[in-house]
Amino acid sequence: MQYQTLREEAYEANMDIQAQQLAIYTFGNVSAIDRAAGIVAIKPSGVPYRDLKPADMILVDLNNNVVDGTLRPSSDTKTHTLLYRHFARIGGICHTHSTHAVAWAQAMRPIPNLGTTHADHLVSHVPVTAVMTDEMILGDYEHETGNQILDLFRQEQLSPEEVEMVLVACHGPFTWGKTAAKAVYNAAVLEEIARMAYLTLQINPETPPIKQTLKDKHYFRKHGAQAYYGQ
Amino acid sequence: MQYQTLREEAYEANMDIQAQQLAIYTFGNVSAIDRAAGIVAIKPSGVPYRDLKPADMILVDLNNNVVDGTLRPSSDTKTHTLLYRHFARIGGICHTHSTHAVAWAQAMRPIPNLGTTHADHLVSHVPVTAVMTDEMILGDYEHETGNQILDLFRQEQLSPEEVEMVLVACHGPFTWGKTAAKAVYNAAVLEEIARMAYLTLQINPETPPIKQTLKDKHYFRKHGAQAYYGQ
Amino acid sequence: MQYQTLREEAYEANMDIQAQQLAIYTFGNVSAIDRAAGIVAIKPSGVPYRDLKPADMILVDLNNNVVDGTLRPSSDTKTHTLLYRHFARIGGICHTHSTHAVAWAQAMRPIPNLGTTHADHLVSHVPVTAVMTDEMILGDYEHETGNQILDLFRQEQLSPEEVEMVLVACHGPFTWGKTAAKAVYNAAVLEEIARMAYLTLQINPETPPIKQTLKDKHYFRKHGAQAYYGQ
Amino acid sequence: MQYQTLREEAYEANMDIQAQQLAIYTFGNVSAIDRAAGIVAIKPSGVPYRDLKPADMILVDLNNNVVDGTLRPSSDTKTHTLLYRHFARIGGICHTHSTHAVAWAQAMRPIPNLGTTHADHLVSHVPVTAVMTDEMILGDYEHETGNQILDLFRQEQLSPEEVEMVLVACHGPFTWGKTAAKAVYNAAVLEEIARMAYLTLQINPETPPIKQTLKDKHYFRKHGAQAYYGQ
Repeated sequence: MQYQTLREEAYEANMDIQAQQLAIYTFGNVSAIDRAAGIVAIKPSGVPYRDLKPADMILVDLNNNVVDGTLRPSSDTKTHTLLYRHFARIGGICHTHSTHAVAWAQAMRPIPNLGTTHADHLVSHVPVTAVMTDEMILGDYEHETGNQILDLFRQEQLSPEEVEMVLVACHGPFTWGKTAAKAVYNAAVLEEIARMAYLTLQINPETPPIKQTLKDKHYFRKHGAQAYYGQ
Repeated sequence: MQYQTLREEAYEANMDIQAQQLAIYTFGNVSAIDRAAGIVAIKPSGVPYRDLKPADMILVDLNNNVVDGTLRPSSDTKTHTLLYRHFARIGGICHTHSTHAVAWAQAMRPIPNLGTTHADHLVSHVPVTAVMTDEMILGDYEHETGNQILDLFRQEQLSPEEVEMVLVACHGPFTWGKTAAKAVYNAAVLEEIARMAYLTLQINPETPPIKQTLKDKHYFRKHGAQAYYGQ
Repeated sequence: MQYQTLREEAYEANMDIQAQQLAIYTFGNVSAIDRAAGIVAIKPSGVPYRDLKPADMILVDLNNNVVDGTLRPSSDTKTHTLLYRHFARIGGICHTHSTHAVAWAQAMRPIPNLGTTHADHLVSHVPVTAVMTDEMILGDYEHETGNQILDLFRQEQLSPEEVEMVLVACHGPFTWGKTAAKAVYNAAVLEEIARMAYLTLQINPETPPIKQTLKDKHYFRKHGAQAYYGQ
Repeated sequence: MQYQTLREEAYEANMDIQAQQLAIYTFGNVSAIDRAAGIVAIKPSGVPYRDLKPADMILVDLNNNVVDGTLRPSSDTKTHTLLYRHFARIGGICHTHSTHAVAWAQAMRPIPNLGTTHADHLVSHVPVTAVMTDEMILGDYEHETGNQILDLFRQEQLSPEEVEMVLVACHGPFTWGKTAAKAVYNAAVLEEIARMAYLTLQINPETPPIKQTLKDKHYFRKHGAQAYYGQ
C-alpha cells in the first residue's frame, strides 16, 4: 500500500486525540503531509475511533482531490489543505473540540500568556480569529475557516513556526507542528494552558500577563539557536 | 427469549451510561422500543450496573403494563412511555444525572447555543421545562414529567427530531434518538456542551449566542438533505 | 479469626474510598459495627491502601479500648464511637476528604437542596457544624468533633436515619448508614451533590432551593412506607 | 552500576508524577540526594516517561557537574542543587506543573490555609515568591529560581522542615521532603489543597483562614514530639 508510513503517522495521531482525552466520540481530526509528493493523509469523516485502521486514512492532494480511499475525508479537509499550502514548513495539523480551548474560542477571547507553562511553548497569547462574515459562512465554509486563520496570522504578524496554535471563534482550536504527533502534542498543551488561564483568572481576575523577559527566557531556552532545554 | 435484540440494545445502552461516566452508581436509565410490537425494554430499578444482564431488562407496553420481567421497571418508566407515544419517530430514550447538565437544570436556565460543538447537534438552545405545579407533583408524577416535556416542545415549537434533548427543571436531562445508543450519545454530547457553556460564561459572562448563519451551517452540514458530513 | 466478617466489611468499605476517588493517599477512614457485641472494626492509621488487608482492621469497643489489632486505630476513632453510641441504628461510618464536600465545609456553608439528585437522598440541606471553640480543640478533640455533630443534629432537629451526612466546619464530611458500604455510598453521593450545587450557583447565584413538594416526592418515593423506587 | 539505589529512588519518584497525574507529557522533574556522597540523581531533560529507565537518571554533584550519565540533566538542575545546599535535611525535590498549583502561582497569590487537609501538612499558607527581576532572569536563571525560594523562606521566616512546598510566581510549584517519594507526595497534596482552596473561595469569597488552635491541633497531631497520628 502506497504512503503506508504517512497513513500510519496520521492514524497514530488521530488515535492520540482519544488517548489524550481531547475530544469525545469522533470529534476532531488530524492530518499528516508528505511534502515531496504533495499528498495529505487525513481521518475519514464520522468513523468511531475503535473501528479506525491506518488503511482507512484518506489520501488527498493539496487541491482537495481524493487520491486514494473509499470513505469520505474529514469535512474539515479544506481547512487543512489551505494551511498546508501557506504554512510551508508544517508537517501535521490537528483539530479538536477540547473543553477548555473551546470555551475560550466560544468566549471569543485570546488566551493571555500568564506563565511559564504557556511561555515554554509560545511567546504570544493564543490568538483567536474574528467571527466569519455571512458571505464566508454561506460560501466555501471550510476553506474560509483556513482563510480566517491566515488573515489573523498576517494581521497579528505571527509566525506559524513560533505560534503553532489558534482558536477559531465560536468553534475551537486548530494546532500544527513539524509532524502530526507534534500537532496533537500542541493540542494537549493548548488544552492545559486554556484550563490554567481559566483557573488563574478565577483566582485573580486582575492577573497581568507574564513579563517579557521571563516569557522570552522560557521560550528561547527551549527553541531556536540558544536552546539548552531537552536533548 | 423473546425480544432478545431489544433487550440487548437496552442493556448495552444502559451500560454505556457508566462507560461514558454520565452518572454515579445506578442513577439514570435507558429504554429502547420495538415500534412494530409496541414494546419497550427498560432498565430495572436499583440494580447495580455490575450485576445487570440483558435478561434483566423489563419489557413494558406503551400503557406501562409489565409484559415480561421479574424485577420492577425503572420508576421513570411512565416518562419514557409518554414520550414514545407522542414522539413517534424516536427509538430510544436516556435519562442521566450527569453533573453539568444537572447543574443547568437546577439553575433552571436553558443552555445557550454558544458554538459549533452545540450547533453540530441542534439549532436551538437546550430547552428547560417549567417547574411542575404541586398538583402535577402530587398526582401521577412520572407521567407529568413527560407532560412537562411535551408542553415545552409545543410552546417553543420544537421538533423532537431536531432537538433530541431537554432539561427537566430541578431534576436533570432526558435525551432521545433513533436508537437507544443514539440517546446515550446525545446524553454525552449534552453533558459536554453543558460543561463548555458553563466555562464560556465564566470566562466571558457577556458571550452572545453563535450567529444564525454559522449555527445553521454546522447543523445542516450534518443533518437533512444537504448534509455532507459523516458517511 | 474473630469478627472476620466485620473486618472484611470495614476493609471493603475502606478500599471503596479509593475506588470511588473520594480521597488521595490514605486520607479518610471507614468503620463498621457489630451491634450485638458492641465492637467496631476501623482502619488503622496511616497505612497505604495498597498494603491494607482485612486482618489489619483494628477492633475497638465503644469506649475506644483496642480489643484486637497490632496497629494504631484511626486517629478519628473517638468521633466514630461517639456517633455509634448516640445514633443507635447506624451500622457504618465514613470520613473522607473529598474535594467538593471539603470546599463547602471550608466555606462553612450548608449545601442547599437544589434538585432531585440531592432530594433522592435527604429532605434537608447538608448541615454544617459550628467551628469548635478553643476549649474543645485543646481538649479531647476527636471526641468533641463527634459532639459538634450531635449538637448540630439536636439544634436542627435532624434525624440520623433521614440525614446520613454532615460537614464538619473547616474540616470535611462524615457520612453513615445501615452498613459501612452504605456509608461510603453516601460519601460518594455527597461529593456529587456538593459538586452539582457548586456549579449550579456559579451558573445562577440566585437559584432557589427545590420546592417542598418536589423534594418530598423524590425522597418518599425512595424511602419509608410509601416507597416504590428500587427493588 | 554505582548509586543504583539512588537512581531507582529518583526514577520511581519521577514515574509517580505521571501516576499521580501531576503533569502532562514530560513536564516536571524529581531528584534524590545521597547526602554522604554529595551526589544528586535527577531526571534527564525531555525524555518521555514511557521510555525512562533508572539507568537514565543523571548523577550530578552539588556544583552541577555531571558525574555520570549520557543525557542532559533536567534544565532545572541548578534550582535543585541550590535548595539541597541550603535545606540541609531534605532528601528529595519535586517540580511539577500541576494545574491548580500553577493557577495560584500564575495568580501570584499564596494559598490560604482554609482547612484541616491543608493544616495536616503545614501550619502556614503555601508561600509564593516575588516575580524575578530582569537581572535575575537574564543572569543564571535556574540558580536564581532557587535564590527566590531561599529569599522567601528567609523573609517569611519559614522552616523547610515545616513548610515543604512553595509556589514560584508565574511558574509553578516546587516541593521537597525527606525522600524523593515524600517530595512527590507533597506535590500531590499541594495540588489537592490548591484545588480545594480555589473551590472554597468560589463558594464563599469571604472565607477566613482556619483558626490558629485548629490549625496547630491538626499539624501537631501528625508532626513533632506530640504526634499521635499514623503508625
